[in-house]
Amino acid sequence: MQIAVLLYDRFTTLDAVGPYELLARLPGAETVFVAKEAGPVRGDRGSLALVADRTLADVPDPDIVLVPGGPGSREAMHDPEILAWLRGADATSTWTTSVCTGSLILGGAGLLTGRPATSHWLALEELRAVGAEPTGERVVFDGKYVTAAGVSSGIDMALHLIGRIAGDETARTVQLLTEYDPQPPYDAGSPEKAPAELVARWRGRAEKVLAPQG
Amino acid sequence: MQIAVLLYDRFTTLDAVGPYELLARLPGAETVFVAKEAGPVRGDRGSLALVADRTLADVPDPDIVLVPGGPGSREAMHDPEILAWLRGADATSTWTTSVCTGSLILGGAGLLTGRPATSHWLALEELRAVGAEPTGERVVFDGKYVTAAGVSSGIDMALHLIGRIAGDETARTVQLLTEYDPQPPYDAGSPEKAPAELVARWRGRAEKVLAPQG
Repeated sequence: MQIAVLLYDRFTTLDAVGPYELLARLPGAETVFVAKEAGPVRGDRGSLALVADRTLADVPDPDIVLVPGGPGSREAMHDPEILAWLRGADATSTWTTSVCTGSLILGGAGLLTGRPATSHWLALEELRAVGAEPTGERVVFDGKYVTAAGVSSGIDMALHLIGRIAGDETARTVQLLTEYDPQPPYDAGSPEKAPAELVARWRGRAEKVLAPQG
Repeated sequence: MQIAVLLYDRFTTLDAVGPYELLARLPGAETVFVAKEAGPVRGDRGSLALVADRTLADVPDPDIVLVPGGPGSREAMHDPEILAWLRGADATSTWTTSVCTGSLILGGAGLLTGRPATSHWLALEELRAVGAEPTGERVVFDGKYVTAAGVSSGIDMALHLIGRIAGDETARTVQLLTEYDPQPPYDAGSPEKAPAELVARWRGRAEKVLAPQG
């Protein structure tokens, strides 16, 4: 089972590495990081680059496609080379997945038209603009299409996927070995739970948030 | 405020990237990934390398030191160059932190002697062997020393730290923007919560788990 994680300039690193860390523990999984060119690809903060070991052309038909989000998704969602690769990979994939604004890229490739899907809470209207039907859920399954909400939600998505692919016992094993027993000291992780004035302030600044260093 | 994230061969990528993603959003933070040599450093699965932009010598006195865990911690905890850097950085750091078996490396540098601390649940006895007093908590503060349990716990640690450094509102903002509202579909993320037979099976295989591809 081959898992391809797409990298592009100014992706959000945890969007990729969170689900990777769990999915890479699937028995028999081979994970490969891909980009238009092989080599380091820098994330949205500027301070971390992940290495794409292979080009898109090297990995035409992965079983699982994982597309992270990030400010650079606004360019990637219009990049002909990335969109052509996604459409080709999706033609034979078992699962086509995204985290955060990665769903905008899937949408840009025409893969989410008419489908329930999700994205970062600040990008749900943009997701609608690419033809999807945004939901407020953290992880949305629609057939083989799986989209997760902002940044950290990719970890929950991975655990769901592992359960579907390899069963509950394997999923529980991966949860135990990655000690995924979250205990955040605050309860402000969604627009429904965070203080209303905080949510309103960031809604007013969505463009800034979604830009680098935002 | 400079944050240095230590990389070494066969570290666990989420240990580093989880807290990085949150801490890098601290106002005024400059994050730098460091290693013995600058360039790509490959994680424990073999399929992902992160780039260290600077050498240890380039970054002698960060404000925050973050040490991820991973199977390679068993070599790093005896590496004179890494230990000398850690001792030097710790001499002037505001916070010295670790995730997972990163605490074994802090212990190897003599920084946790007699201190309450934590590590991956399968490594608590090893942590005791380097002089610390293991606790079962997910995040342990002892003055400026902060240790987190296995892999994913670094995200919780980062949120605690942001609260202490920049206040509750900044911490809630980072939680909201990274949409850290965990909803794992299983409840097996700690040895207390996972099925007893699963825990027993992995306790019997600790060496294998903590090795690459384990």
